[in-house]
Amino acid sequence: MSANSLSDIRVIEIGTSIAVPYGCQILADFGAEVIKVERCGGGDEARRWAPVREGVSVTFLAFNRHKKSVVIDYKDARGKQVLEELIASADVVVQNLRPGALAAAGFDWERLRELNPRLIYVEMTGYGRTGPRHLQPAYDAMLQAYSGVVAMTGSDDGPPARVPLSMMDMSTGMWLALGVFEALRRRDKTGQGVHIEVSLLQTALAWVTAPLMSVAAGEPVPERLGSGFRGNVPNGAFPTSDGYVFLSAGNNDTFHRLLDAIEAPELANEPGFEDNLARVRNRRLVNDRLSEATSAFTTDELLARLTTAGVPHSAVNTLDRVLTDPQVQALGQIVTVEHPRLRDLSVVSAPITFDGEYLEHRGHAPELGVDTVAVLGSLGLAAQEIDALIEAHVIEAAPQGVAS
Amino acid sequence: MSANSLSDIRVIEIGTSIAVPYGCQILADFGAEVIKVERCGGGDEARRWAPVREGVSVTFLAFNRHKKSVVIDYKDARGKQVLEELIASADVVVQNLRPGALAAAGFDWERLRELNPRLIYVEMTGYGRTGPRHLQPAYDAMLQAYSGVVAMTGSDDGPPARVPLSMMDMSTGMWLALGVFEALRRRDKTGQGVHIEVSLLQTALAWVTAPLMSVAAGEPVPERLGSGFRGNVPNGAFPTSDGYVFLSAGNNDTFHRLLDAIEAPELANEPGFEDNLARVRNRRLVNDRLSEATSAFTTDELLARLTTAGVPHSAVNTLDRVLTDPQVQALGQIVTVEHPRLRDLSVVSAPITFDGEYLEHRGHAPELGVDTVAVLGSLGLAAQEIDALIEAHVIEAAPQGVAS
Repeated sequence: MSANSLSDIRVIEIGTSIAVPYGCQILADFGAEVIKVERCGGGDEARRWAPVREGVSVTFLAFNRHKKSVVIDYKDARGKQVLEELIASADVVVQNLRPGALAAAGFDWERLRELNPRLIYVEMTGYGRTGPRHLQPAYDAMLQAYSGVVAMTGSDDGPPARVPLSMMDMSTGMWLALGVFEALRRRDKTGQGVHIEVSLLQTALAWVTAPLMSVAAGEPVPERLGSGFRGNVPNGAFPTSDGYVFLSAGNNDTFHRLLDAIEAPELANEPGFEDNLARVRNRRLVNDRLSEATSAFTTDELLARLTTAGVPHSAVNTLDRVLTDPQVQALGQIVTVEHPRLRDLSVVSAPITFDGEYLEHRGHAPELGVDTVAVLGSLGLAAQEIDALIEAHVIEAAPQGVAS
Repeated sequence: MSANSLSDIRVIEIGTSIAVPYGCQILADFGAEVIKVERCGGGDEARRWAPVREGVSVTFLAFNRHKKSVVIDYKDARGKQVLEELIASADVVVQNLRPGALAAAGFDWERLRELNPRLIYVEMTGYGRTGPRHLQPAYDAMLQAYSGVVAMTGSDDGPPARVPLSMMDMSTGMWLALGVFEALRRRDKTGQGVHIEVSLLQTALAWVTAPLMSVAAGEPVPERLGSGFRGNVPNGAFPTSDGYVFLSAGNNDTFHRLLDAIEAPELANEPGFEDNLARVRNRRLVNDRLSEATSAFTTDELLARLTTAGVPHSAVNTLDRVLTDPQVQALGQIVTVEHPRLRDLSVVSAPITFDGEYLEHRGHAPELGVDTVAVLGSLGLAAQEIDALIEAHVIEAAPQGVAS
């Protein structure tokens, strides 16, 4: 039983790296049939991204589950015809080739609509659809820098830092999935497809909306504050003898319980420590004095003391601790599944449940070209035609029986 | 003409702060009627979050456009009845009260279904639906720490840092909106509502999926790398005489063009600088030597040189520069609109276009209680009944004619 609502929707993904693959994986998690059209001679470059184990990129696995892989050289006239037939059979096409490249291969929006008037077409770029940089390639961290995120991340007195996650890519994927849901509802009403455009830069501007609106209204540009927060001190990561603990005290009541818990009650009477506004003004001093006190405890000791004292806090977990954390395990979002090459593989379900159930894990990311023969067959191509296309290097197919 | 697909959908938001308000704003951007049910005596606490200008919180404005505000004390029996009628009239209820609080007020999932079998009910929490911490309150940065994000953010040799954006909140809002779209499609097919649960912790685990899968597969825990990237050196922010520039050189060809551009061609022959793998091993040394060279130029000079040399790069923009950037301006995503109290206000459209059009900006975040009278009237309450409820402090209404 697939309760998932997109099980009658076919998506053609002509995408590489992270943003488009992640967006299409979200659609696949919700039940869509996603056919990943990859180039001859290696497919999506993320298939070779580190870490590679037993010949499989873990990063590629993270962003391509539940998909089919079809390899076509659509710059060849016969390959182009196959792609045209695929597009005519689809509900959605999503692509993030170099700006203009798919149009140059004969698939601009005019042509796509001609092939399929109900088609929803999603184009994803780095800098957006227009403007002096719209033809430039871009990647996640570059757009973090361009949009102001890098300048505000990192220690007060140190250099800027990046967000060490594919933040702009993954969230552009999420916007793309939202856009497809919206377009499907519009199509239910009108019968018409639509041309959606998303980009890393637009997504980045959405992330910085609140501080950007504040600066536009005349507020100062946000400074780097490390793990701190502008409106509240203490709030952030404090050192222990063997790591860090994240804590916050939003009012004096909590602050005094914190001081007792770390055996530094005398700091309550320190000049400049009176209340939150004073502590914000004396941020550096307050953080330094508190750090001296927290450093006397081990992480486990400090966590226990803060729990007892009722001070909001969290371990600053590293990912190995996240994996074994009791709360994380209780949620059941991380599941261990069999993988033909890697054996046990931990996968992370989409972060949402419906009547208590995560979206079912139905299968791994596909081996390159494993579905070429079956998908082309479903379009009506005869076995000899498919063999001839393979022979002519217009398509590539994984050997029969290769596990996906 | 509202082409937006949710224009026939009514959402009741019982939410504060950022995650639920942002998720419901996305639904409102796509056309939904969002009725924000706020508590007596001040409403959503984000209405008072800094920066406040002319009595209006810019942060509140950023997450609550296109909504109606209704103020009800639903712990009062008469207020409870009003909320029941509202829920019976709605398609979606979204809430992020303290875990269990809405159920304690008489609105658990059983009761909600009784009131409205087609209802889509979204519950959002900090730590998820079960587990030892599921009743604990939480906030964005705390879950960044808990999920491993803080531990990997910041300089190599410095303390950990937070992502200085409401990353977990905003993306939980995005997942919530995706869940509502999915549930609406399911309901179109089955006629039934569903109970959705999302949480900051689940969302955080989705963000760290790729590195978490890698660690689970036996790879080392990611280290803090500042603005750097594990697989490639140089890649990150480099100092200039008046700021920083973000740049990357993924292969020797680009690396040598970079060295020429910064007038340090001799570094090509430095031991340990041979190729990317060697440079990754000698990260610190390479970055130090390059930083010496880049520091000799102003930001503008270095940007111009990198452009000429064809080295991928970006300015490390601060938000004031983002606002005036020609590429950002060309995209048209930031629009200046009239606000009754603030006059000119810059707002940021959702980062997606449909046939080249952003989702229309239809109105600002509402003043507290400005829609109480109209919404209750639409439920069939007579003017005298409404007046009596106001008199009894069961509901609050903004004075007639207050601009929203």
